[in-house]
Amino acid sequence: MNRDRYRRLAVVGVGLIGGSVAAAARRRGLAERVVGVVRSAERIGRVEACDLVDEVTADLAAGCRDADLVVIATPVGTIAALALEAAEHASADAVLTDGGSTKAGIVAHVTRRCPRFVGAHPLAGDHRTGPEAARHDLFDGAVTVLTPTDDNPDDAVGAARRFWEALGSRVVTTTPERHDELLALTSHVPHVAAAAVAATTPADAMPLAATGWADTTRVAGGSPDLWREILLANPGPIAAGLRRLATEIEAYAAALDRRDADALQRLLTEGKRRRDALGS
Amino acid sequence: MNRDRYRRLAVVGVGLIGGSVAAAARRRGLAERVVGVVRSAERIGRVEACDLVDEVTADLAAGCRDADLVVIATPVGTIAALALEAAEHASADAVLTDGGSTKAGIVAHVTRRCPRFVGAHPLAGDHRTGPEAARHDLFDGAVTVLTPTDDNPDDAVGAARRFWEALGSRVVTTTPERHDELLALTSHVPHVAAAAVAATTPADAMPLAATGWADTTRVAGGSPDLWREILLANPGPIAAGLRRLATEIEAYAAALDRRDADALQRLLTEGKRRRDALGS
Repeated sequence: MNRDRYRRLAVVGVGLIGGSVAAAARRRGLAERVVGVVRSAERIGRVEACDLVDEVTADLAAGCRDADLVVIATPVGTIAALALEAAEHASADAVLTDGGSTKAGIVAHVTRRCPRFVGAHPLAGDHRTGPEAARHDLFDGAVTVLTPTDDNPDDAVGAARRFWEALGSRVVTTTPERHDELLALTSHVPHVAAAAVAATTPADAMPLAATGWADTTRVAGGSPDLWREILLANPGPIAAGLRRLATEIEAYAAALDRRDADALQRLLTEGKRRRDALGS
Repeated sequence: MNRDRYRRLAVVGVGLIGGSVAAAARRRGLAERVVGVVRSAERIGRVEACDLVDEVTADLAAGCRDADLVVIATPVGTIAALALEAAEHASADAVLTDGGSTKAGIVAHVTRRCPRFVGAHPLAGDHRTGPEAARHDLFDGAVTVLTPTDDNPDDAVGAARRFWEALGSRVVTTTPERHDELLALTSHVPHVAAAAVAATTPADAMPLAATGWADTTRVAGGSPDLWREILLANPGPIAAGLRRLATEIEAYAAALDRRDADALQRLLTEGKRRRDALGS
């Protein structure tokens, strides 16, 4: 499927996503050499211990030098600046892409200055983070959203698409703005809902929390640092989605005040209908 | 651990919970004969096909006649009436218990009239329902909440406790009212949150729903009929919990409006702290 083979893949940020990109690329032979770039020298040993890359460095310029493929997989607040810096050191025809959970701000900032950067978001994750959680099959069967713009040359878009497909994911394409509107509803609002359910459960109730609570709140175990940045990178669509959610929850509370069985049945049925559309 | 062996266990309502009680009791040899009572003759064949009980009947009087242990495992709105009716036919020294997700209303209605009824709620479940989903290990490692009152004789409470323990669960005891307050927060409010997240996700966003959405909304796949009754049986604590949840969600939306990173960090950290107290 993927006829590309890169000389040097630089993965900037070797956590769950970056580490899994590196591991999948190595496993599938997509690059002759896979270099991990970490934020500080203290992290080098930790990444080396996970055996995800051929080489680890805390020097962005050295790591990206002559790379013909660069993946930025750092927290969303740092992706734009790192992509522009990486592009200065990478090969002139390098393709750049990223793994950020928001796209409009990043793409608006980077793509015009660096048309070979093609925004991407693999919908794969875990509530665990860090290189220890990385795995070569993280993207198998997942969807990756690609958000090219008119600034991107076709060959860069094609290469980015083939790369994310070669990692095991199915690529769908949309605009950066539409991506952020949709992900607000499928990922960012659910994260807040999970965290809010967890936070409003008092400690003395916890012995009676069972699998339903565990499922509903699972994503709230994710990193507050990462999620603060994601929320701040997409504030408008998320705030609007949260207010729709709060209104829906208030509709249940009002139906309970009235002991309105028909209204509760309608509300629950609509939730089940949408949930059943996905499967387990 | 369990020195009791019953002559005849009648399980009224052979769905996920009742079927699992029957299967676990048979597997562990807790009764000489396990009889399933279903609501209508049409359901007899379906339950027989699942091989959960020794005998199935749609005749409550016949099924409960001379039973020395009765478990009512029907939807919460029907438990009280069925428990009182079952008690008329069961052996005079029979112990009765149930599997209802709410306790205050049921216990208040039944226990004074029938002091050998000891309210119980096994915190085990599944978004699937019906006898096909039943399994003998459903209660292994689960908590069962027992809600005895001063009306219950000690021997009935002890027998109910030993029975739920013998099914594989760990029994904790509290009042019916306290049970309902706590379960509102650990189960009923999370269910509504899951259903509300699902219902407010538009159909055209669903192709971008991934594991986070799937986890957060999983319980919304449960039966609207069952959950309508659970919500209506515990309206006060649930409505109060939902309004606390809506306030928490609004705090996120307000923090997003202000681009308030510190507030978001605080909110997310509190959610993670509570979530991490449980484990995966």
